[in-house]
Amino acid sequence: PLDWLCLAPHPDDAEIGAGGTLIRLAQAGKKVGILELSRGEKGTQGTPEVRVQECARAAQIMGLSWRGQLGLVDGEIMDTAKAAHRLAATLRAVRPTVLVVPHFKDRHPDHFGAYHLSKRAVHLAQLQKAYVGGEPHRVSRVLLYQGNADITPTLLVDVEGVQEVWAAAILAHESQFAGAAISETVTPEIVERRRARQGYWGTLGRVRYAEAFEAETALLVDPEAL
Amino acid sequence: PLDWLCLAPHPDDAEIGAGGTLIRLAQAGKKVGILELSRGEKGTQGTPEVRVQECARAAQIMGLSWRGQLGLVDGEIMDTAKAAHRLAATLRAVRPTVLVVPHFKDRHPDHFGAYHLSKRAVHLAQLQKAYVGGEPHRVSRVLLYQGNADITPTLLVDVEGVQEVWAAAILAHESQFAGAAISETVTPEIVERRRARQGYWGTLGRVRYAEAFEAETALLVDPEAL
Amino acid sequence: PLDWLCLAPHPDDAEIGAGGTLIRLAQAGKKVGILELSRGEKGTQGTPEVRVQECARAAQIMGLSWRGQLGLVDGEIMDTAKAAHRLAATLRAVRPTVLVVPHFKDRHPDHFGAYHLSKRAVHLAQLQKAYVGGEPHRVSRVLLYQGNADITPTLLVDVEGVQEVWAAAILAHESQFAGAAISETVTPEIVERRRARQGYWGTLGRVRYAEAFEAETALLVDPEAL
Amino acid sequence: PLDWLCLAPHPDDAEIGAGGTLIRLAQAGKKVGILELSRGEKGTQGTPEVRVQECARAAQIMGLSWRGQLGLVDGEIMDTAKAAHRLAATLRAVRPTVLVVPHFKDRHPDHFGAYHLSKRAVHLAQLQKAYVGGEPHRVSRVLLYQGNADITPTLLVDVEGVQEVWAAAILAHESQFAGAAISETVTPEIVERRRARQGYWGTLGRVRYAEAFEAETALLVDPEAL
Amino acid sequence: PLDWLCLAPHPDDAEIGAGGTLIRLAQAGKKVGILELSRGEKGTQGTPEVRVQECARAAQIMGLSWRGQLGLVDGEIMDTAKAAHRLAATLRAVRPTVLVVPHFKDRHPDHFGAYHLSKRAVHLAQLQKAYVGGEPHRVSRVLLYQGNADITPTLLVDVEGVQEVWAAAILAHESQFAGAAISETVTPEIVERRRARQGYWGTLGRVRYAEAFEAETALLVDPEAL
Amino acid sequence: PLDWLCLAPHPDDAEIGAGGTLIRLAQAGKKVGILELSRGEKGTQGTPEVRVQECARAAQIMGLSWRGQLGLVDGEIMDTAKAAHRLAATLRAVRPTVLVVPHFKDRHPDHFGAYHLSKRAVHLAQLQKAYVGGEPHRVSRVLLYQGNADITPTLLVDVEGVQEVWAAAILAHESQFAGAAISETVTPEIVERRRARQGYWGTLGRVRYAEAFEAETALLVDPEAL
Repeated sequence: PLDWLCLAPHPDDAEIGAGGTLIRLAQAGKKVGILELSRGEKGTQGTPEVRVQECARAAQIMGLSWRGQLGLVDGEIMDTAKAAHRLAATLRAVRPTVLVVPHFKDRHPDHFGAYHLSKRAVHLAQLQKAYVGGEPHRVSRVLLYQGNADITPTLLVDVEGVQEVWAAAILAHESQFAGAAISETVTPEIVERRRARQGYWGTLGRVRYAEAFEAETALLVDPEAL
Repeated sequence: PLDWLCLAPHPDDAEIGAGGTLIRLAQAGKKVGILELSRGEKGTQGTPEVRVQECARAAQIMGLSWRGQLGLVDGEIMDTAKAAHRLAATLRAVRPTVLVVPHFKDRHPDHFGAYHLSKRAVHLAQLQKAYVGGEPHRVSRVLLYQGNADITPTLLVDVEGVQEVWAAAILAHESQFAGAAISETVTPEIVERRRARQGYWGTLGRVRYAEAFEAETALLVDPEAL
Repeated sequence: PLDWLCLAPHPDDAEIGAGGTLIRLAQAGKKVGILELSRGEKGTQGTPEVRVQECARAAQIMGLSWRGQLGLVDGEIMDTAKAAHRLAATLRAVRPTVLVVPHFKDRHPDHFGAYHLSKRAVHLAQLQKAYVGGEPHRVSRVLLYQGNADITPTLLVDVEGVQEVWAAAILAHESQFAGAAISETVTPEIVERRRARQGYWGTLGRVRYAEAFEAETALLVDPEAL
Repeated sequence: PLDWLCLAPHPDDAEIGAGGTLIRLAQAGKKVGILELSRGEKGTQGTPEVRVQECARAAQIMGLSWRGQLGLVDGEIMDTAKAAHRLAATLRAVRPTVLVVPHFKDRHPDHFGAYHLSKRAVHLAQLQKAYVGGEPHRVSRVLLYQGNADITPTLLVDVEGVQEVWAAAILAHESQFAGAAISETVTPEIVERRRARQGYWGTLGRVRYAEAFEAETALLVDPEAL
Repeated sequence: PLDWLCLAPHPDDAEIGAGGTLIRLAQAGKKVGILELSRGEKGTQGTPEVRVQECARAAQIMGLSWRGQLGLVDGEIMDTAKAAHRLAATLRAVRPTVLVVPHFKDRHPDHFGAYHLSKRAVHLAQLQKAYVGGEPHRVSRVLLYQGNADITPTLLVDVEGVQEVWAAAILAHESQFAGAAISETVTPEIVERRRARQGYWGTLGRVRYAEAFEAETALLVDPEAL
Repeated sequence: PLDWLCLAPHPDDAEIGAGGTLIRLAQAGKKVGILELSRGEKGTQGTPEVRVQECARAAQIMGLSWRGQLGLVDGEIMDTAKAAHRLAATLRAVRPTVLVVPHFKDRHPDHFGAYHLSKRAVHLAQLQKAYVGGEPHRVSRVLLYQGNADITPTLLVDVEGVQEVWAAAILAHESQFAGAAISETVTPEIVERRRARQGYWGTLGRVRYAEAFEAETALLVDPEAL
């Protein structure tokens, strides 16, 4: 079973939005995984074949325990019964304690689509009579990570100590970031721009660099850890 | 220095609103304190003298490391420069890491007054040139606890294991809860009614009983503890 | 025509979330109905056949004027044109003044699915040229009831006087609540846990037990009734 | 005892913001009052002496059971202990069930000042040991009415049937509305402009004209009245 | 390329909700267009054939540079991959800088459906590898206009100077507004009622009549223009 | 009369939070001013005398048309009638069209104190009978700038082109930023850290660096400028 699983609508989303945190966890010995929902085949640059290799490299750099591919159609990720059953089956197979999903405010339809899809899948995964293979599994916490929209985070994670590994993991997606600038997120300046974001959250958390997460419901915590 | 300090506008507010959590922390070896802001002299029942003794009993039951009295006027707790300097001096003296304060949505003017007062005091306590005795001190986290309004909590704390101690700590305030029912909060049914509240938050946190807290800004957390 | 109609994604949802209010209304002579959207066939315990009988018993206990079954697939309740036409046809047939629907914040996909579905159906029911049988009907008010998420209610209803009837109506769903605890909502402790919730809202409304409802838009009211 | 009391920072505020509702209630036999907090002596037009007579006329037109003047300084209405004690004493004297106060979002400092002041006074009025003359009194409901800011109402009241009386009550404040236009609210077009507002809320409530109110906490209601 | 494009779920929605602003822009020489998403064939009055002619008249009155019809099914406008591809192709063809869409809070399912559909289409239109004809196009700004729900606008536009043209454009939809009153929006009083709304927003913007728009994300502006 | 006036609780707040925008406006020929509310005498570093000279240098670098000092007590800036009259008199004297004020969510009591103070002063400045010298003046727009809290901006301003001037203006406050790091905002890294913030907002506005502002009410805009 995984400690943390991060859903990535496209192959590089998890590295960009939650990579520092995932690396910190992996370095601390936690079992961390990324599930890519699509192969990113609609992306302007790169091919699915090349991206598979890039993902493998990034996984190695990050120290992931698991990396999977759900094979949904890029650009059409949404909450359907069929996709939810596939996602639920994967949740049952890898059994994550914490699930990290894209934010519903993201502009990209695959991002908010993945958010909505994850809600149905999390429910199905725990339902004994769902037509989903494997043993029922209940995810303990769901956290939302930041894509391309401003969010109102409830949690910040200090990622200063993993800056270099994080940059390397992103740049492993060479087909996306070594070529021409296609958009605000597909650009050779990706690390510099996302580091500015981490610097912003760091300012608010009184550390140098931080990643931001949002929990939609109150989190049960151990007060001694605060 | 204290690990946690809870501000109580009146002598029994901390026990009622955050008592279970404070007890859990004390039992785990943390240094926990309560600062009463007033003597509750406007309360229909009890006298300041009697309430001092009740507070001492409750402190013992809860295992507090410190209990103080700021001596503001009951019914007139608000954000003034003078009160803020007194509160800041106490913060410097007891040096809490986590500060727990009443919620700004509470109906009682002393509760939202205490909330606003605490913001100024927290700032003054860390300012080197403030006219406040003692060494500057920066509180790491501020959490809001629930009084008599519905809140939107960010954190829940499981308090099932300390139900009996918690009830005893509240009932130590005998002048308030052994007599006639004066209001929704000054009533012999206080434990039963506040336990319903804990049962409600428990339902949402998937435990039996929980206390709810709200953080106004994103909390820097160790992801391994989630 | 019904005065109130409550939509239940699964056979026991209305009793659990809005039962006290529905009973109060029925006892006051109002015509009250429940429409089950699915047979709850994905539930771990109980069979559709058994549950039909349990529903009949609960209806009798509550004093319902009408109870119906829409026959959607459990676990797949969502906003589709087809389901909306079926629901709209039922709305035209039973013609409720007040419609009570699940909350969009509920975790269960069938609950937020039912919420979204109800918006389309309410619209279709009033449209003369919709391909829906029966005479057009306009619902006057839509209220949301609480499922398994924290809500921000606009209305509270005192349900102290119907506690026993309410408990009996829930426990009529014997297949769900007489067996093992399956989840936080499918458990023999259901009445105790939901009563804690009513106690919480009661604390805020200054009564013993209350049910909470949310209106998404401003309610036209008779000021004399306030 | 009054059924409804409306707080007016300046002599004509209640008529403009909540007049239709107050008239409807008075016509239905309810005891309705207005408490002016200041004499409006900072207003560009009119003198306190003239305005007293205008207020008396408006009261007659509206059918008020009571109209009072608290005598605070125009332009300096805020939450102070002294003003709160005076307001609390009046609340104890007239004993309203429903209290209607200005909205905290209003631009005018006297309006949001009155809102904050009312919270302290409502609390003091019910406190047995407060240094306030008269018997303790608990207000049952507090509603906010609209001044010069956009609000998010929870309640709408149909005021189509009292349009003429309402216009007459406003225009009784002749010193304000018969002269030159001083501002958006002190203008001969006052009725026309506020009627547009009522038309807007009417559109949302599916009536011709409505006044809007906001409740800050969930309202305990009789479901039969919905 | 168009400067502004407004999406209308039904033929007259743009005129009613954003007409004044569109007319102001057209009169100032901007290229303004309306895209009708459906023919309004479910409307109680009028036929698609008649409405085509009415639309042409309204376009002439408003001074539109372009008016199109997407041909989706009235009553079934929602976010589907197929509809999004068609809308994206139109966005590529007419290449608007500012896109104005219905509000997600509107009661009418076609309105919030159009909102959700537009998010996917805006994304597809800019994606090089989307299966959409034409050159990729990025919309610069998306604004939401008001339908039948209360909104919280971020922008107001003064429309006093175009009142007569605006009324004429609405009344060009003769089949809807010259007959019997069908609903709050299909009524001969449409201009009077929507003018009340403009009067309301005008009150808040300190002009006579204004239309209200909401931007979901922060707008990049030239500070000199403020 | 000034086009823009920015209120700075302490001498360097305007440069840090809104400097880029103020510089852009000054370079475009607008008349821009800064009003310091206090001399920053509670700051750990620097003396009021030294800071006067630093302010003069920064004003020159930014191209300000006016820079003033209100002389309130550092650490005690709050909404009092006396301070409001002084601020109102200055508003009447310099007559700004746009007023930029600190954000109410800022942690520093002088920041949210300045926000609340400005609301009263803006009102007094326009009131003919206020006991304030000078001719009445109405501010057209009030914008909030970011201090040390996360905000939800409505407007972004591109400040890439003035990066060097902006850095020079901040560093002119040598006593604050050339010495030891005192806090997150009093640190030699100030430019680097605030540039990260601008980079964050830039990411959201699709430019390199942006400053963020919040308007509390809908802004009347010229649609042609969008």
